[in-house]
Amino acid sequence: MRQALDQLEVATCGQGFTRLNTQLNSWVAATGLQLGVLHLTCLHTSCSLTINENADPRVLQDLQAWMNAVVPQDGRGPLDAHGQRSRYLHDDEGDDDMPAHIRTALTAQTLTLSVDRGRLLLGTWQGIYLWEHRHAGTLMQLSLHLIGE
Amino acid sequence: MRQALDQLEVATCGQGFTRLNTQLNSWVAATGLQLGVLHLTCLHTSCSLTINENADPRVLQDLQAWMNAVVPQDGRGPLDAHGQRSRYLHDDEGDDDMPAHIRTALTAQTLTLSVDRGRLLLGTWQGIYLWEHRHAGTLMQLSLHLIGE
Amino acid sequence: MRQALDQLEVATCGQGFTRLNTQLNSWVAATGLQLGVLHLTCLHTSCSLTINENADPRVLQDLQAWMNAVVPQDGRGPLDAHGQRSRYLHDDEGDDDMPAHIRTALTAQTLTLSVDRGRLLLGTWQGIYLWEHRHAGTLMQLSLHLIGE
Repeated sequence: MRQALDQLEVATCGQGFTRLNTQLNSWVAATGLQLGVLHLTCLHTSCSLTINENADPRVLQDLQAWMNAVVPQDGRGPLDAHGQRSRYLHDDEGDDDMPAHIRTALTAQTLTLSVDRGRLLLGTWQGIYLWEHRHAGTLMQLSLHLIGE
Repeated sequence: MRQALDQLEVATCGQGFTRLNTQLNSWVAATGLQLGVLHLTCLHTSCSLTINENADPRVLQDLQAWMNAVVPQDGRGPLDAHGQRSRYLHDDEGDDDMPAHIRTALTAQTLTLSVDRGRLLLGTWQGIYLWEHRHAGTLMQLSLHLIGE
Repeated sequence: MRQALDQLEVATCGQGFTRLNTQLNSWVAATGLQLGVLHLTCLHTSCSLTINENADPRVLQDLQAWMNAVVPQDGRGPLDAHGQRSRYLHDDEGDDDMPAHIRTALTAQTLTLSVDRGRLLLGTWQGIYLWEHRHAGTLMQLSLHLIGE
C-alpha cells in the first residue's frame, strides 16, 4: 500500500461548474495505483466539490438557480419563517462573498472517491464538479491524495 | 493493511429512508478486517447517504417534510428572496427528478465511516440511511470499499 | 502504513462554533505520522463538522443566521412553496432538537482531511469547526482515525 499526494490548479470562469473527471482520471493513471481511495480537498472557502448529473447541462442551471434563490446574493439573507430578510454582517469582500461561504457549508469542500482498476469508481451519470460560487473567475487549488496499491 | 471492495444492491420503496447499519456491519464482519475506514459511494444522482437519529421514526418524517418544503416537487423551484418561483428547465424525467438532483447536492452521495473491532464506529443514536429522493422505488447500487487490517 | 484511533471530547457552550485546528494538529503530531488521511466522526446527531472561513467572526454569525432562517427553531418548519409552515412531529426533546437533526443532514457529521508533514493540509483561510446546533452546551465525542505513515 502506498500514497500519492499532489496539487491540481483549476481555473474557473466565474460562478458555475467545472467538470474534473478527465483530469482526475489522468492523475490517478499517472500514479500507477490500481485500487485505492482518492481524497480531494478544495483549499478555499468559496467553492465546493460536488457530484451531479453529467448529461443534461440544464441540471446544473437548475441547481445554480435553486442555490441563488435560497442563498441570495444581493447582500441580504433568505426569507425567514416570518417573510423577513436580514443583511449579512460580513460584506467587505462584496455581495457574493458571504453567500459563497454559506454555499460551501451546504455542500462540501472535500470529497472522497473510490478508485478501481486505475479509474474513479462512479455511476454512469455521475460527474465530479468544482462549483465556483463567486462571480469572478480565479485559480483554485485542489489537493489530491490517493492511498492504495 | 489490505483492501476489500464490493457492491451492495439496495431496493428502495419510493421516497424515503432505508437503514443500512445491519447490512454494512455484516459485510464488514465478512471481510475479517477489524480496524479500518469504510468508504461508501452511492452510484446514482437521485439518492443520498445520510446519518440521522435511529430511534423515533418521526425524525425522518420531519426531515422529509423539510426537504419537500425547501426543494419542492411540483416542477417549480423554491420561493426566492422576492417571493417568486421559477420553473425547472430539466423536466424530461418527471417533476421529482430535478428536485432529486438538488437534494443529493445538499446532502451526500458518498460517506466515509470508521470501523473498530470489526464494526462501524458510530454513536448510540446514529443510523446510516440511503435516502431515495424519487417517488418510484428502484434498485440502487452502492460501492463498499474498506481499507484496514 | 499504520493506523491511530482515538476519541476527543469537545465541550460546547450552546449553539455555535468551536474551532478544532489546534487540537487536531496536536493529536496528529502525537501519533508521529507524517503523511496520511484523517477521518473524523462526530458521534451525535445534533452537531456538525464543517470547514469555513477562520478570519472574520462575522462569517460564522451570518452562517448561523442563514441556518436559523431556513431551518427555524420555533417548533415549525420553513416556509414552503405556498408560504405555509407545518409543525414538527418530533418535539419531545424541545423546539431546538428537530432543527438540529435537519441541520446535521444539510452539513456533515463526518469529515476526511489530508495530513502532510505531520499537519492538516488546509488552505490559509480554512478553519475546522464543530457546529453545535442545540441551545444548551454539552460534551461532544469525536472519533479521530488516521491512516498513514
